[in-house]
Amino acid sequence: MAHKEDIQERLKKIQNEICSALENIDGKARFIEDKWIREEGGGGISRIIQDGKVFEKGGVNFSTVYGPIPEFLKKELEGKSKSNQFLATGLSIVIHPQSPMVPIIHMNVRYFEIDDKIKWVGGGIDLTPHFVNVIDASYFHTEIKKLCDTFSLEYYPAFSKNADDYFFIKHRNETRGIGGIFFDKLMESPDCSMDKLLEFITALAKVFVPIYMHLVEKNKNTPFNEREKKWQLIRRGRYVEFNLIYDRGTKFGLETNGRVESILISLPKMASWLYDFIPEKNSKEEKTLAYLKKGINWAQ
Amino acid sequence: MAHKEDIQERLKKIQNEICSALENIDGKARFIEDKWIREEGGGGISRIIQDGKVFEKGGVNFSTVYGPIPEFLKKELEGKSKSNQFLATGLSIVIHPQSPMVPIIHMNVRYFEIDDKIKWVGGGIDLTPHFVNVIDASYFHTEIKKLCDTFSLEYYPAFSKNADDYFFIKHRNETRGIGGIFFDKLMESPDCSMDKLLEFITALAKVFVPIYMHLVEKNKNTPFNEREKKWQLIRRGRYVEFNLIYDRGTKFGLETNGRVESILISLPKMASWLYDFIPEKNSKEEKTLAYLKKGINWAQ
Repeated sequence: MAHKEDIQERLKKIQNEICSALENIDGKARFIEDKWIREEGGGGISRIIQDGKVFEKGGVNFSTVYGPIPEFLKKELEGKSKSNQFLATGLSIVIHPQSPMVPIIHMNVRYFEIDDKIKWVGGGIDLTPHFVNVIDASYFHTEIKKLCDTFSLEYYPAFSKNADDYFFIKHRNETRGIGGIFFDKLMESPDCSMDKLLEFITALAKVFVPIYMHLVEKNKNTPFNEREKKWQLIRRGRYVEFNLIYDRGTKFGLETNGRVESILISLPKMASWLYDFIPEKNSKEEKTLAYLKKGINWAQ
Repeated sequence: MAHKEDIQERLKKIQNEICSALENIDGKARFIEDKWIREEGGGGISRIIQDGKVFEKGGVNFSTVYGPIPEFLKKELEGKSKSNQFLATGLSIVIHPQSPMVPIIHMNVRYFEIDDKIKWVGGGIDLTPHFVNVIDASYFHTEIKKLCDTFSLEYYPAFSKNADDYFFIKHRNETRGIGGIFFDKLMESPDCSMDKLLEFITALAKVFVPIYMHLVEKNKNTPFNEREKKWQLIRRGRYVEFNLIYDRGTKFGLETNGRVESILISLPKMASWLYDFIPEKNSKEEKTLAYLKKGINWAQ
């Protein structure tokens, strides 16, 4: 099977598995599905969960778009191919839980193709706890590192640095969360075939369920109070700032007239901005801020 | 007095008047004041009101910044002046009321100077009702038009069109609210001196109180229900989208390392994003959406 068909089949299957797992653990809400068609070619399957017992709002989106190469990509690709057609397919997830004790998670994998020679993969996974818990942060990074290491020992060090740099709210001088991995435009090389790269992004998409389920199970029944809820809403405000100001996927989607409701599914049901809110000294909130920095070595 | 000193004095006085008027009508909350200094030159006085009876969150900010011309302005000004120094001063307001029946308002006036020859003014005022009320929308535009007409009959037609084009949420294909006026880089001409232009922006800043007080007084005691509150939070979400994605002042501020808390005072205390929320047929919400279009002639 051609790479593009192969990866689409896999991602659609994983979309089903992820939605089932999330519904199972939620126990109340079910995903709704919206299929959409892109005028210039392709479309997608958006799955949305709202107002669950565990998950307040989340999206698990699959899409494949193709057609004439969009204007903003032409320059980069000039002279590299005779083809004027592109194809991009991917799976993208953002989950906002009800409880401030359960972290927000984001995962995305994508495959891009112009012709037989120009093909690349990209993706990432990152965790945004409202309160940073050292054990959970270490678990998350260690599991991701384990997966990376089975493909290349160079992946985790490079990709976790990318994530720190990418998931960074410049005007706040803080990271969005505790990072994870982020990579883009991985192309095949003598050392690594496209088949292997597809294996890597498939493995990443598959590891989402066990990793996030562990963190959800562990924290979903932890009691919380109003102060913790208030902090959650503030952190979600920062998430909104990142996604609307810096996130390339959001920008790309909005600038190319993508389906707005699928793109902005990453925004939380409720978010808050308080003027110059400064956490109390030595509070959990202040400690969390101290962890929202680049370069922390969480993996074991 | 030089233009730059003259306008600064006036705007600081108007800042006081506006804050007093808003405190009076609120009856509970008081403005807090944060003075800040800009490293490269200048600074500001931010006044913030929160958790009032009438106003949930609002900012009335005065600032004067000066020093070497910032990088992004150099190209535009190349060869036009020997000076490498600029000064910009302005007053900027955003008010988010508690009640969904009271509109959000924004007003901004600014003066910019490089040397004796290169001076301009800019500004605008626009209204964002959560529910569009035809009488209030017409009142707002008519009052603004009256003010514009005393300066030039060309102002209102041109500046209200600018506002429609500027306060537009492209990816939603809807305006932020019912518009108002917006203008930039008005320079003196044989017909209109800088003194007169300063009179115009002063008059605009001064008309804020009577116009907004009328709308607040008229609507602040109107009862509202949960459904109306929910819609308010959704409209505020759109306000956030505009300000973080399109607003030039916000972009300018964040890109030039402005004071983040003063810049983002425009964001509401609480905002909401629901997946693909579509108002009921013939509901007030649906009617409001129908009014969030360019080119409606509200003024009488």
